[in-house]
Amino acid sequence: MTETASRPTLEAVAARAGVSRATVSRVVNGGEGVREPLAERVRRAVAELGYVPNQAARSLVTKRHDAVAVVVAEPESRVFADPFFALQLRGISKELTAHDTQLVLLLTEGREDHARVGRYLAGGHVDGALVFSLHFDDPLPGLIQRAGMPVVFGGRPGWSDGTDEVVYVDSDNRGGARRAVRHLVGLGRGRVGHITGALDQTSAVDRLEGYRDVLPDADPALVAEGDFTPAGGERAMRELLDRCPGLDAVFAANDLTASGALRVLRERGLRVPDDIAVVGFDDMLPLAEQTDPPLTTVRQDIEEMGRLMARLLLDRLDRRPADGTAADPPSGVVLPTTLVRRASA
Amino acid sequence: MTETASRPTLEAVAARAGVSRATVSRVVNGGEGVREPLAERVRRAVAELGYVPNQAARSLVTKRHDAVAVVVAEPESRVFADPFFALQLRGISKELTAHDTQLVLLLTEGREDHARVGRYLAGGHVDGALVFSLHFDDPLPGLIQRAGMPVVFGGRPGWSDGTDEVVYVDSDNRGGARRAVRHLVGLGRGRVGHITGALDQTSAVDRLEGYRDVLPDADPALVAEGDFTPAGGERAMRELLDRCPGLDAVFAANDLTASGALRVLRERGLRVPDDIAVVGFDDMLPLAEQTDPPLTTVRQDIEEMGRLMARLLLDRLDRRPADGTAADPPSGVVLPTTLVRRASA
Repeated sequence: MTETASRPTLEAVAARAGVSRATVSRVVNGGEGVREPLAERVRRAVAELGYVPNQAARSLVTKRHDAVAVVVAEPESRVFADPFFALQLRGISKELTAHDTQLVLLLTEGREDHARVGRYLAGGHVDGALVFSLHFDDPLPGLIQRAGMPVVFGGRPGWSDGTDEVVYVDSDNRGGARRAVRHLVGLGRGRVGHITGALDQTSAVDRLEGYRDVLPDADPALVAEGDFTPAGGERAMRELLDRCPGLDAVFAANDLTASGALRVLRERGLRVPDDIAVVGFDDMLPLAEQTDPPLTTVRQDIEEMGRLMARLLLDRLDRRPADGTAADPPSGVVLPTTLVRRASA
Repeated sequence: MTETASRPTLEAVAARAGVSRATVSRVVNGGEGVREPLAERVRRAVAELGYVPNQAARSLVTKRHDAVAVVVAEPESRVFADPFFALQLRGISKELTAHDTQLVLLLTEGREDHARVGRYLAGGHVDGALVFSLHFDDPLPGLIQRAGMPVVFGGRPGWSDGTDEVVYVDSDNRGGARRAVRHLVGLGRGRVGHITGALDQTSAVDRLEGYRDVLPDADPALVAEGDFTPAGGERAMRELLDRCPGLDAVFAANDLTASGALRVLRERGLRVPDDIAVVGFDDMLPLAEQTDPPLTTVRQDIEEMGRLMARLLLDRLDRRPADGTAADPPSGVVLPTTLVRRASA
């Protein structure tokens, strides 16, 4: 606590440099409008005294809070139950911390709380927002847009066609799904089912499209709707078994869904992969290695997605409008996916 | 979005009531200093027009953000790995949401980021803070005190003797530990060991004290230091087995620690409870039911602790200084613990 008392003040820097407090403040906060010899004198005084600008005062001048909001458009209970979110947050946290920026996670009980999240964002408490797990009819993007702050989305928002100004980080969901289904077809499987994710999210829609790319003429009965949870996977697997005799393979929209499906197959006494082969999506560890049998799946680098989201946002925050030399950030970044073979297919 | 355009404005209310904007603002934000007939006219106009005050403008006047910070004094990776935190956050989230207050979770990579958390709190972005999992030498409490906001702690802070002004919610750690150790002694066990939690936290120290209350003359070699994680439990269990021949019972400081200890006992071919009985602490579900064998443990209501922390803070925020009728909130609330018997002891 005495640390504060012994810190050099703005006044001390001004006295040493022989300039006004206002001049020191301007130099410390970016240096606009201060002639070079004067600015250099201030910088020397700052260095000699080891002056560290006061954060609160600095943010009054710069309008910067050095804080970024993260909004996961899911209830708090799901944020903590699905390791996908922990991994994405890990990437975000590492990148923000490396830039001394505070991660402000705004939790909710459900979508009815999103208006309140929008109010908090509009209240000027953060410099920008990272938003992921959006659902199609969510009012959040509109609320954030009204708050007028830079935002980077995790996963392509439903309204974006990839050519507009929306900045997002996504995985190649469609390509990954094609890879999974081609693998099953390549194993000689003739009745390949698909358990979808939550179809009000682009990741689920894109994976379904990938399945259809490879099997355009598949019986519609082979597609059962899930919701990215193990319970959803169980429900959908039972549906598929009941209505699709001869089913010999399933592509599940994520590993949690696949783990639920495997449980039902075991319950029914069906052997994996002998009777039914199963492929997941995510390569969520340790889950994908610990299922029985270990899961063949499509790997996406979730932590890297989080890290990249944070970096794109920090880049946007640092870009000065006057600085025409900086290249425009990409509007959408799509990371590659790869097939990881284990025992289930 | 058109919703905003059609919303009645402060000006419309002022016009209808025949008063100034300032008068409407004062009435809407608590009504201090406006004579009753005038205030009544404003309230009628508000009701007739269905006016909803703008949140940002309102917080300028009331200095309220309707947001509460939650700081878990652990790295982000532990917050998501230990279900204790998810449960406490669940209780907090439910209570704050029920009062339309935003939960602002401030995540860090480690203690070196706590100065930044302190700066964010001092920046005036929240009305108060909930802080849990404090360690003895953590600078956070000092930083929060300097930020000058109401705070409620989860777990008794190390410097509090329970009689001061510090507001906290805790479990009866010492009483729960006594219950666990008495149970083991009651089973006829003569060499009862203890694997501690992180001893720079009061919860761990209190549980160790409870062990010593029952066994004041226990061999010091029977106590091994853990850190509330499964890996710490494994390490400490190996230590105990190596240096305490005849060990026939272990009280582990939490269920995660007990799960690590059980793994080592199985590895060494020891039967639980026949050779060594094991008791945990928390009653963390589903873990405590899924260990092999299911775990006898001391139950504390973690979600209720979180809920109560949030309620105590909201109570403090709502208490008007002028309102002498409100009872002082308790400085410390200690929730009871109970022994849950399963197969491990």
